[in-house]
Amino acid sequence: MSSVTTPDPRGDAPGRIMAREMAEQPAVLRRLLDEGAGPVGRVAQEIAARRPRFVLLTARGSSDNAALYAKYLIEIRLGLPCGLASMSTTTAYGARPDLTDVLVVAVSQSGGSPDLVDSTRAAREAGALTLAVTNNPDSALAGVCEHHVDILAGPERALPATKTYTASLLALYLFVEGLRGGDGGPARVLPDLAEQLLARHDEVRALAARYRFAERMVITSRGYGYPTAKEAALKLMETSYIPALSYSGADLLHGPLAMVDNVSPVIAVVTGGKGGEALRPVLDRLRGRGADLVVIGPREHVERASAGFVLPTEGVAEEVQPILEIIPLQLLAHEVTIARGQDPDAPRALAKVTETS
Amino acid sequence: MSSVTTPDPRGDAPGRIMAREMAEQPAVLRRLLDEGAGPVGRVAQEIAARRPRFVLLTARGSSDNAALYAKYLIEIRLGLPCGLASMSTTTAYGARPDLTDVLVVAVSQSGGSPDLVDSTRAAREAGALTLAVTNNPDSALAGVCEHHVDILAGPERALPATKTYTASLLALYLFVEGLRGGDGGPARVLPDLAEQLLARHDEVRALAARYRFAERMVITSRGYGYPTAKEAALKLMETSYIPALSYSGADLLHGPLAMVDNVSPVIAVVTGGKGGEALRPVLDRLRGRGADLVVIGPREHVERASAGFVLPTEGVAEEVQPILEIIPLQLLAHEVTIARGQDPDAPRALAKVTETS
Repeated sequence: MSSVTTPDPRGDAPGRIMAREMAEQPAVLRRLLDEGAGPVGRVAQEIAARRPRFVLLTARGSSDNAALYAKYLIEIRLGLPCGLASMSTTTAYGARPDLTDVLVVAVSQSGGSPDLVDSTRAAREAGALTLAVTNNPDSALAGVCEHHVDILAGPERALPATKTYTASLLALYLFVEGLRGGDGGPARVLPDLAEQLLARHDEVRALAARYRFAERMVITSRGYGYPTAKEAALKLMETSYIPALSYSGADLLHGPLAMVDNVSPVIAVVTGGKGGEALRPVLDRLRGRGADLVVIGPREHVERASAGFVLPTEGVAEEVQPILEIIPLQLLAHEVTIARGQDPDAPRALAKVTETS
Repeated sequence: MSSVTTPDPRGDAPGRIMAREMAEQPAVLRRLLDEGAGPVGRVAQEIAARRPRFVLLTARGSSDNAALYAKYLIEIRLGLPCGLASMSTTTAYGARPDLTDVLVVAVSQSGGSPDLVDSTRAAREAGALTLAVTNNPDSALAGVCEHHVDILAGPERALPATKTYTASLLALYLFVEGLRGGDGGPARVLPDLAEQLLARHDEVRALAARYRFAERMVITSRGYGYPTAKEAALKLMETSYIPALSYSGADLLHGPLAMVDNVSPVIAVVTGGKGGEALRPVLDRLRGRGADLVVIGPREHVERASAGFVLPTEGVAEEVQPILEIIPLQLLAHEVTIARGQDPDAPRALAKVTETS
């Protein structure tokens, strides 16, 4: 954690607000494990007692990527069928499905987006068991839900969400583990490892130089790492404005692969475990096409790529790796944006609470 | 239907295979209404009698966009909670959720993708009621499912799916209407209207000139039109290789809007009805940013945009409009690709049946 290599969170350097919040992540994760795990576990116990049979997740933006991570956990770890809600079916079309036996989990940093609040209220009226996962226990979203989980990330001032993304992932992980009676022990390693990743900022800066003039990027992954690919694409777009397309490895082969060549650099997020194994044939195809392939993942995959960033995966359960693997990609978005002469703290046109209705 | 204005399906002109199949769409839709509606209705009756409580849709590529259209229909018209399956949870992670009371609908033109076949077989073993929607009743996917709906589109030879996309939408529409006891009458207008759209090829060619040198595109919509936006982006990418990003209007405001300015042209798919109304504030924001906004939709929206293509919406039920609105966008992908000196029939790196596992 040498303060020499982390971006300067003081003064008026571009991106200092985002840098400060990225740097807070180890402390945020630690606080959630120390103070949040108990309350999350109790909410999970109460919800488990109601025996939901289906889960619908509802969110937008970065929180939607966190919700997608929860979808993988719920299907794989819990064995419950699960879907992501299309909010407009409720808010624009007035759909009122019968939601008996359905758990609706609404994820939102601010807890303030009106369409999320409205559609979640409608879900509760339609019989759903409702849970809000937010960074604000006093928010409207927390108010309309039967249960609330606080991600305890502290105020987020930067427009690109960073610490609230990793905190949402960890809160959702602890919740799903709680539903199955686990204690979330595998997450204990995360704060120290997050600290180690942040200390390797120089490595990311070197990678960022590669994308100084990139006009597009493709980011791919599979399994637990797929939400990371989507979140990395969103971070890159909202800070650097590079059109970054994200695909699951399987979908990439169904069309968009035509777009990949030596002018479309590819970043692959390789989760150590079954997701990374399932991505292997996709990586082979990309190498076969001569793609510029940067791997964020285990050493053996990085060594076979054009460049990369080695993630610690030894002794880290596959299902918690997404909480780490986004960190170098957050740093990358930050560095690429600065390298291109822009300020990650001042994205054009964005407001912190997006008022869609 | 002047043959002067439609692309030449004969000879060796670039894109002639795709052009021929686009031109077949009125006949394909007519055949499905005349010969397919009966069998689809009977399958729907049998499935309705089993009273599924939750629907999971599973597909890849263009079929995934068709599945998303079905998700809107199922939530809005049927009032059933619905999700899109993450195939890798089954194929890579071996998840075996309890699928009692769950209807799994697998959509695939070829019915041959191994991961789709494997995950659908696993779903059936886990208690799901299974339906395959394919263009091949002899396919492996049709074989593993309890029920099958044939989209009757005839052999598709072009790599970019066109006629099988609109046929899949219509088959899914007829199926969902059948589940609620309807006869799908509002779809009867579609073949003639599709023919009229194809006859306006010159208008699309003029629009295509606009994107001759585009380095990126953003395509947005909301509600029923959102699958059209995703399918249009996929078509553009797999033929012209332009990185085309698609967002629901609400998600666009949550970050990617920063990327939109006068170098990122925007295409908005405006469905006449509630979806288009919900998109209105997004269109206002885009105009406010000075975006180059092309609208595919009702006349009043086209007239307020930089340019556009007027869709017939008078007397056309909102829920069937997506079957029409993709057609000018298919033509656009075809024309932009030719304008850029490439061949829509020869996308790099694509195989017709994608063998992900």
